[in-house]
Amino acid sequence: MIYFDNSATTRPLDDVIALVSRSMGECYGNASSLHALGMEAERRLRMAAETLSGTVPCPAGAILFTSGGTESINTAIKGYLAANPRKGRHIVSTEGEHPAVLESIRQMVSRGYEATLLPLERNGSVDPDRLASAIRPDTALISILHVNNETGAITPPEEIACIRDIRCPDAAIHMDCVQSFGKIPTPFGRAGYDMASVSAHKIHGPKGVGALYFRPGLKLEPILHGGGQQHGMRSGTENVALIEGLALAAQIAAQRRPETPGIVRQIRDRLVSGLAGRVDHEILSPADAYPGILNVAFPGMPAEAMLHALESEGVYVSTGSACSSRKRKTSPVLRAMGIPDSIAASALRFSFSIYNSCEEADAAAEAIVRILDRYTVRSTKNR
Amino acid sequence: MIYFDNSATTRPLDDVIALVSRSMGECYGNASSLHALGMEAERRLRMAAETLSGTVPCPAGAILFTSGGTESINTAIKGYLAANPRKGRHIVSTEGEHPAVLESIRQMVSRGYEATLLPLERNGSVDPDRLASAIRPDTALISILHVNNETGAITPPEEIACIRDIRCPDAAIHMDCVQSFGKIPTPFGRAGYDMASVSAHKIHGPKGVGALYFRPGLKLEPILHGGGQQHGMRSGTENVALIEGLALAAQIAAQRRPETPGIVRQIRDRLVSGLAGRVDHEILSPADAYPGILNVAFPGMPAEAMLHALESEGVYVSTGSACSSRKRKTSPVLRAMGIPDSIAASALRFSFSIYNSCEEADAAAEAIVRILDRYTVRSTKNR
Repeated sequence: MIYFDNSATTRPLDDVIALVSRSMGECYGNASSLHALGMEAERRLRMAAETLSGTVPCPAGAILFTSGGTESINTAIKGYLAANPRKGRHIVSTEGEHPAVLESIRQMVSRGYEATLLPLERNGSVDPDRLASAIRPDTALISILHVNNETGAITPPEEIACIRDIRCPDAAIHMDCVQSFGKIPTPFGRAGYDMASVSAHKIHGPKGVGALYFRPGLKLEPILHGGGQQHGMRSGTENVALIEGLALAAQIAAQRRPETPGIVRQIRDRLVSGLAGRVDHEILSPADAYPGILNVAFPGMPAEAMLHALESEGVYVSTGSACSSRKRKTSPVLRAMGIPDSIAASALRFSFSIYNSCEEADAAAEAIVRILDRYTVRSTKNR
Repeated sequence: MIYFDNSATTRPLDDVIALVSRSMGECYGNASSLHALGMEAERRLRMAAETLSGTVPCPAGAILFTSGGTESINTAIKGYLAANPRKGRHIVSTEGEHPAVLESIRQMVSRGYEATLLPLERNGSVDPDRLASAIRPDTALISILHVNNETGAITPPEEIACIRDIRCPDAAIHMDCVQSFGKIPTPFGRAGYDMASVSAHKIHGPKGVGALYFRPGLKLEPILHGGGQQHGMRSGTENVALIEGLALAAQIAAQRRPETPGIVRQIRDRLVSGLAGRVDHEILSPADAYPGILNVAFPGMPAEAMLHALESEGVYVSTGSACSSRKRKTSPVLRAMGIPDSIAASALRFSFSIYNSCEEADAAAEAIVRILDRYTVRSTKNR
């Protein structure tokens, strides 16, 4: 099996699974309990927060543990706006965001907020001038993807922060770092963003856990109310084992982060060179994208047909983002980039991890060539 | 170590830990992915929903997986009211609910809803006549604890449903079944309730996962918006491993449910008889409570002092609910029952699981006798 769907989710590392499993058995106390088992749970949560924040780096007190990227993003967008009603009623984002961002914004629009969603440029990211003109004095929040989950296009947070500082210094910035965290630097504490969402299962950690970085002192209205855990910002018994799994996955990812883009670039380039001159294709990811994500169209062959043909050859990829793939409509990200529907309909996302290999890329390229040869012959016959 | 804090949280069963661990490694696909790994994840989610609903019983399509009891309760209360604005603006509940219920209600009150919170009777549950008079034609939602987390007092759902049917048939009932699920019957599909919240970590399952039962056809506004997973009712990549862990824990609990009250009653009675006539104490749990929870006051000895003294003897218990124990104020549940603060301040909760033993209860009783002997001697000396 060749798993090139690492942007949808990754296989947890064996060390992470072992830690989660050990922690479940050893440290099952409720972190709110006053006895030693509770104290031990609380201590481990504090350690995990320190480990996690050390990888970024950011202050440990600026980390909220959540049930995953979606909860982090919902908390950032809805929680920030609800807690800061005087900051304005206007939101700026792009048409190419993850559904968790777009749907959270839609919720706030239904509660009387106004949103400006910018189109993406052909290079997959937002045009700085367009962004600058969209930001108004009553803009409360700017939410932008760091690495686009379908194309890998990178939006530099420093640039966003710089534009915000000029146009509306009072607006908060939320970066959706779900795809970038642990792969390229995400200096939450330094780069001028106020919030950043991350998820464990995109970096070989467990599903069901994520984190929201927030600038210390930032006011956030909780999404989940109850026992007042995590300083009242996220109620619910803390999931110590998964949080420890997140911290370990983040630590391992951070150790390998300097070499990560290089490794996945090699794999991507081997796939690209395996296709070059052999099959009709169009690379939709921009040249300067995060190289772990490669969006390629095979004009004439519907994406889903190619996906299943590749699957039967043991190669796992996706059409667009996993979250919206079941809906079988044209990718809103590719549409936001102005790519014609006819091309977008044949686009597949290959997403690599440092645990993939160049040999896998060669084998995938061979499989694509074989499939397209067969498909073209069959298509010609059918005519 | 004698762990008598099973209402705060339980140790996951070894079989559950093994399943979660295996599932994390084997079935790491994103359930939204179109390829075989995604399909396998989706199939396992469906199986888990069937297993879980089979233990209740209720229809499999009536289960929403969440990150735990707090999220289930928040979804039930906020999600139901938000989705049904025409059902009325009035909520009925009690002063003795879990903070997740009380704080969710408080949120809705801040959005213009009105709440009637009933006091508890001396037996720890709500008076049916008081409940009947609190329900009004504009009551949209009634939320009641099934088994009180501090005293074990049981409120029969059938009785609540009967009163609702007479007073306001259009009002929905949410039962907080976090403490009852898997221990006594919770026939979601039959007993006339519309929603019920459950959590895995109270039944020897993993932390970080729970479920909300909802009557099929019921309208619920999601709390988390995004990729539209779980029929759009709860976005976020499904946590297959933990959901499988929840289903297994529920299945094992259901198999042992017929004998569960009998086993924990024996343990409780051994503890009670070990104290009888030997130490000054007052049992605050009603006689007909769920026997897995025993609330006892040791007048004159502050609860926290007793908790730590017991801890040093290897016995783990809690003061009130774990969630509010850190706040060190008088238990709102005991206060709602009309118990004087002077007694409540010395109240401890012993909570048993079927994996505890009568010998542990004997040892705990001996420890209490020793501690109170020492404490009384010391207190007398200090005078």
